[in-house]
Amino acid sequence: MTTASTTEGPLIIIGGHEDKEGDKVILKAVAERLNGGRLVLATIASHAPDGYFEAYQKAFGALGVTDLVELYVQDRAETQESDKLALLEGAAGVFFSGGDQLRISSQIGDTPIEARIRQIWREGGVLAGTSAGASVMSDTMMVRGASAETHRLGDLRMAPGLGLVRDVIIDQHFAERGRIGRLLGAVAQSPRVLGVGIDEDTAIIVESDAFRVIGSGAVYVVDAEGVTASNIAEGRPDNTLSMFDVRLHVLASGDGLDLITRRPQDPPKAAEGPRSAA
Amino acid sequence: MTTASTTEGPLIIIGGHEDKEGDKVILKAVAERLNGGRLVLATIASHAPDGYFEAYQKAFGALGVTDLVELYVQDRAETQESDKLALLEGAAGVFFSGGDQLRISSQIGDTPIEARIRQIWREGGVLAGTSAGASVMSDTMMVRGASAETHRLGDLRMAPGLGLVRDVIIDQHFAERGRIGRLLGAVAQSPRVLGVGIDEDTAIIVESDAFRVIGSGAVYVVDAEGVTASNIAEGRPDNTLSMFDVRLHVLASGDGLDLITRRPQDPPKAAEGPRSAA
Repeated sequence: MTTASTTEGPLIIIGGHEDKEGDKVILKAVAERLNGGRLVLATIASHAPDGYFEAYQKAFGALGVTDLVELYVQDRAETQESDKLALLEGAAGVFFSGGDQLRISSQIGDTPIEARIRQIWREGGVLAGTSAGASVMSDTMMVRGASAETHRLGDLRMAPGLGLVRDVIIDQHFAERGRIGRLLGAVAQSPRVLGVGIDEDTAIIVESDAFRVIGSGAVYVVDAEGVTASNIAEGRPDNTLSMFDVRLHVLASGDGLDLITRRPQDPPKAAEGPRSAA
Repeated sequence: MTTASTTEGPLIIIGGHEDKEGDKVILKAVAERLNGGRLVLATIASHAPDGYFEAYQKAFGALGVTDLVELYVQDRAETQESDKLALLEGAAGVFFSGGDQLRISSQIGDTPIEARIRQIWREGGVLAGTSAGASVMSDTMMVRGASAETHRLGDLRMAPGLGLVRDVIIDQHFAERGRIGRLLGAVAQSPRVLGVGIDEDTAIIVESDAFRVIGSGAVYVVDAEGVTASNIAEGRPDNTLSMFDVRLHVLASGDGLDLITRRPQDPPKAAEGPRSAA
């Protein structure tokens, strides 16, 4: 698309609970980008991954993804094992399922497994992640913070993520768990970082420094660059966040965002002539 | 404060679940503005108001409000009864407790009871309302809309309220019930109206076309005046809201907002010399 060519593949970042029974819009977007290749389902985020693989196998199977393998590591030592690494050989994509984002970063961060996954992506493979697997995509990830209550300055815990998408912090299950407060708290700390809150059954597809929204919910983009006042530096940990002049975009399926200019983009116009009347 | 003098009393608009056991910051603000006068507790919003009066009697009693009476109307015919109207004689304030905002507007709207309450306020009395009693203060009130899920264009139901505060739409239990989506949906329909979402145990005190925040939570102000694009007019009822360039302020206790300019205001500086060091 752009003149600055890159071979990096798409990132598909999902707010959790993507549809696995109906139209499967999001899983279909993953499947289409595999071109028939192998998908590795990384269930590393989960403490008890039983049943994850079977559920995805059924959903992806219906979408023609027949070469699906599970990658699980119980502990960090296993990331050195050659049979684990072998699972990633020739893979066209990796899909991180949900659980605890700290399990992903702590178990595979800076290991041969992570290096191999990153290489797959750099060579054009798809990286997808849902829920915890979504949060872990950013350089700084949300780890803990109250949902569905007033945001207090001291509530938030963040940690380094895999750093695949830069200057963005991702939150998931966004509308469903009432997380606008904690996302605002995160960007208040560092307005350089754009806050991206993704509803369930909703995803962003990041390609060439921009993303598009797919799925049934909304994506909230919180831009604190123009903030004129906040109490983030003076307040005590139990203080309520105060912040003036945040810019907020609510994006639905088809909408996009340029990650460099931070400007939202309307859905692309259909190229095949006029649409049929409603 | 301003040269354009008005005798209207303050409006104290509360996001629900105000503290009744501890410091009672919000109820204290109500009590202080009664100057020892009678407070009428209007439990009209509730279908089953048993116990409301006793809880408020205990809390307000501890704050020195000894002349507290309950006003309940089972149905609209009762609004004509002279003993109901007599409860409001000489009252220094009225407090609407929670329940269903449509019960308030449908049972007392355009009745002698409503006229008398409005007169108390015009002559300087306090009007307070919590939860449903908060929503009903605006000219158009939120009646129904999904909480804690993706906002769909057709989700929202609004109705005329008591119209005490103009060009504002109020939502309550805001962080706790994940209501940013529906408030955005409301202002998208009419950007003239400012969206004000109030957390639990949090209130705005409206005086002279401005308000200040008190209590432990946050107040979210959603200003759609600068919105550059939205799908509100074209979308189908089940479509997800899309809206670019919303201005959002998060206000904590002490912060204010000028309702004419729509600009937030920092807490007033202490007038009694420097604060003690932390």
